[in-house]
Amino acid sequence: MLLRRSVGVWWSNRCFITSSTSFPPPHSHSTYNDHQTTAAEVDGKLIANDIKATLASEVNHMKKSIRKAPGLSVILVGKRKDSASFVRIKKKACEQVGITSDVLTLPEDCTETNVLDVVTELNHKESVHGILVQLPLPRHLSEQKIINAVNVEKDVDGFHPVNIGNLAMTGREPLFIPCTSKGCIEVLHRCGVEIIGKKVVVIGRSNITGLPTSLLLQRYHATVSLVHAFTKNPEEITREADILVSDVGVPNMVRGHWLKPGAVVIDMGSTLVTDNKGSCVTGDVCYEEAKLKASLITPVPGGVGPVTISMLLYNTVEAAKRAYQWT
Amino acid sequence: MLLRRSVGVWWSNRCFITSSTSFPPPHSHSTYNDHQTTAAEVDGKLIANDIKATLASEVNHMKKSIRKAPGLSVILVGKRKDSASFVRIKKKACEQVGITSDVLTLPEDCTETNVLDVVTELNHKESVHGILVQLPLPRHLSEQKIINAVNVEKDVDGFHPVNIGNLAMTGREPLFIPCTSKGCIEVLHRCGVEIIGKKVVVIGRSNITGLPTSLLLQRYHATVSLVHAFTKNPEEITREADILVSDVGVPNMVRGHWLKPGAVVIDMGSTLVTDNKGSCVTGDVCYEEAKLKASLITPVPGGVGPVTISMLLYNTVEAAKRAYQWT
Repeated sequence: MLLRRSVGVWWSNRCFITSSTSFPPPHSHSTYNDHQTTAAEVDGKLIANDIKATLASEVNHMKKSIRKAPGLSVILVGKRKDSASFVRIKKKACEQVGITSDVLTLPEDCTETNVLDVVTELNHKESVHGILVQLPLPRHLSEQKIINAVNVEKDVDGFHPVNIGNLAMTGREPLFIPCTSKGCIEVLHRCGVEIIGKKVVVIGRSNITGLPTSLLLQRYHATVSLVHAFTKNPEEITREADILVSDVGVPNMVRGHWLKPGAVVIDMGSTLVTDNKGSCVTGDVCYEEAKLKASLITPVPGGVGPVTISMLLYNTVEAAKRAYQWT
Repeated sequence: MLLRRSVGVWWSNRCFITSSTSFPPPHSHSTYNDHQTTAAEVDGKLIANDIKATLASEVNHMKKSIRKAPGLSVILVGKRKDSASFVRIKKKACEQVGITSDVLTLPEDCTETNVLDVVTELNHKESVHGILVQLPLPRHLSEQKIINAVNVEKDVDGFHPVNIGNLAMTGREPLFIPCTSKGCIEVLHRCGVEIIGKKVVVIGRSNITGLPTSLLLQRYHATVSLVHAFTKNPEEITREADILVSDVGVPNMVRGHWLKPGAVVIDMGSTLVTDNKGSCVTGDVCYEEAKLKASLITPVPGGVGPVTISMLLYNTVEAAKRAYQWT
C-alpha cells in the first residue's frame, strides 16, 4: 500500500499525502487548517512515480513514432561518495523511463581543459539532449566556466546564467528550470496549495536551490522574502510565512516556533547525520515540532528529493522533444 | 548654493543631503533617527555631479594616455516624446563627461530586422563600447529578441539575461548592473546607509528596475521582500522595512502609514502628472506624508533619476576600459 492513510489532497486521481489530518482538498480555497493536530505529510516518492509513469509513456511513444530516445550525459569528476551515489540514482531513474544515459567520469586531478573538452564534445553530440555536471566540482576547477560552457539548450540542470536570468525576468521563458525548484512547485501544485498572493519565505540562497526557488515562486505571484545568514532574527520573518521553503543544510534548524500555525513547509535540506546508532539523511526542519504546527510538510527523506530527480527526467525529455521538434 | 542646509551625511567631503533633520552621519552605526521631525532629503543632482566630475577626469586621462574615448550608441525607434526627451538627457550627460555618443533613429514602422541589423553593426563597431536600446519599443518589435542581440560586453543597460542571471547568482559578476539599481545603491552608500542585514522591501518587479534592484540589494546581504500587484495588504509588509524602494509608477501610492518610523525611502517612481495647473513628474511616494515618518528620502524629481543617468555614463566608461584593457 502506497499510502498509510488516504486522507488529504487528490490530484489527477491520486493522493500524494500521507497524513492523519484533514488537510483541505483542492476544491477548498483555503490551504490551511486551523483545527488540525498534525500536519499532512507529502509522499514525494508517490509524486515522483506518477511523473515517471507519464514520462515513460511519453518516451515510449517517442521511440515508436520517431525511433529516437532522449539522452542524458552526466559528467562526474573525482570520487566523492555522495556525488557517485547521486549519479547512480539519476542513472537508475533514467533507465526507469527509457532515457538513454551515460556517465563520463574524470579523475579528481583532471584539468579544467579536460572537463571543457568533454562538455564541448557533448554539446555537439546529437544523441545527447541533456548535460549534467555533477556538483560540487573539485576546488581547482571553475564551476562557473564549466557550467557556462554547457549549451544552454542542453542545460537540463537550469544553472546556466541565461536560464537563471530568464527565470528571473517577467515575460521571459527559461529553457529549463532548476530541478529542485521545479520539484518544489510540483509538490505545491499536486497538493493543491495556492501560491498566488501567498507570503513565501525561502531560507537559503544557493544558486542551485534557494535562489531559483525564490525566483520561480515569484513567477507564480507569491510575495517572496529571501532569508539568509545575514538576516537578523529569521524566525520573526518565517513566522509570517504561509509557505516556508528551507534550503540550508543545517539539520533541525527550523523549529516549531519559527512557523505560522497552518503553514505549508517544504524542506529542501538534506544532510547526512552520523551518530553511534548509524547514519541518516536529515532535513532543515525539526520535523517532530513542525508537524504539530504546519498544515502540510515534506519529510526528509522521501519529500522533495524524489520529485527533484523526476524533474531532471522531465527536463531531459523536454530537451529531446525540442531537439527533434516532436510534441 | 547647492545645499539649503548642510546638515547630514558626508561622503568624500561632500554632503549629499538637503535636510532639516539630524540624519546620522556615517560614523554612526544606526541609520535611523527616532527623534527627527522630518526626513533628510537626498540631493541626487549633487551625487550625479560628483560622479560625473570623477568620470570626466577619467575620460580625460584616457584620451590623453591612449587617444581613445568611450563611445555610447543609443537606438531610438519611433517618435515617443518621453523617449526622445530621455535620449536627449543621456546625450547631454555624455557630452558633459567627454563620452562620444550618437543616436540612431529608426521610424516607428521599421521592422525587427531593421533594428537587429543596427544592433549587429554596433556590436562590431570598435569605437562603440555601450549600446542602449531606448525602451519601450513599438509593440510590433520583440524587446526580448532585440535586447538579447546586444553584445553582452556592450550591454550598458544591464538588461541582457546573462547579466541579470549573473546579478542574481552568488559568486558571479555581471558585466553591467542596470543603471537605476546601481543608482539606488549609490545613493544608499553615499548617504552612509548600512544595507547588510537590513530588512528591505522593494515594491514593483519590473525587469528594468524593481527586479534587478531586489537582486542587487540581496548581493549586499539585505533581507529582501519583493512586493507586487498580487501582494495582499502590502502596507503590512512595507511597515517592517528598514529600507523601502518603490518602482511602481503610481503617483503617491506609498502613504505615510506604509512606513516604519525612521525608514529610508528610495522613490524610483516617475510619472508625468498633468492637471489644470500644468504638468509635473511625480514619484510613487506621498512625499509630504513620508517626510514626517522616514529618516531619509529621495525626492522626485531630483533623487535617484540624475544618479541613474550618471550610472549609465559609469557603465559606458567601464565598458571602454575593458575593451581597451585600460585601467
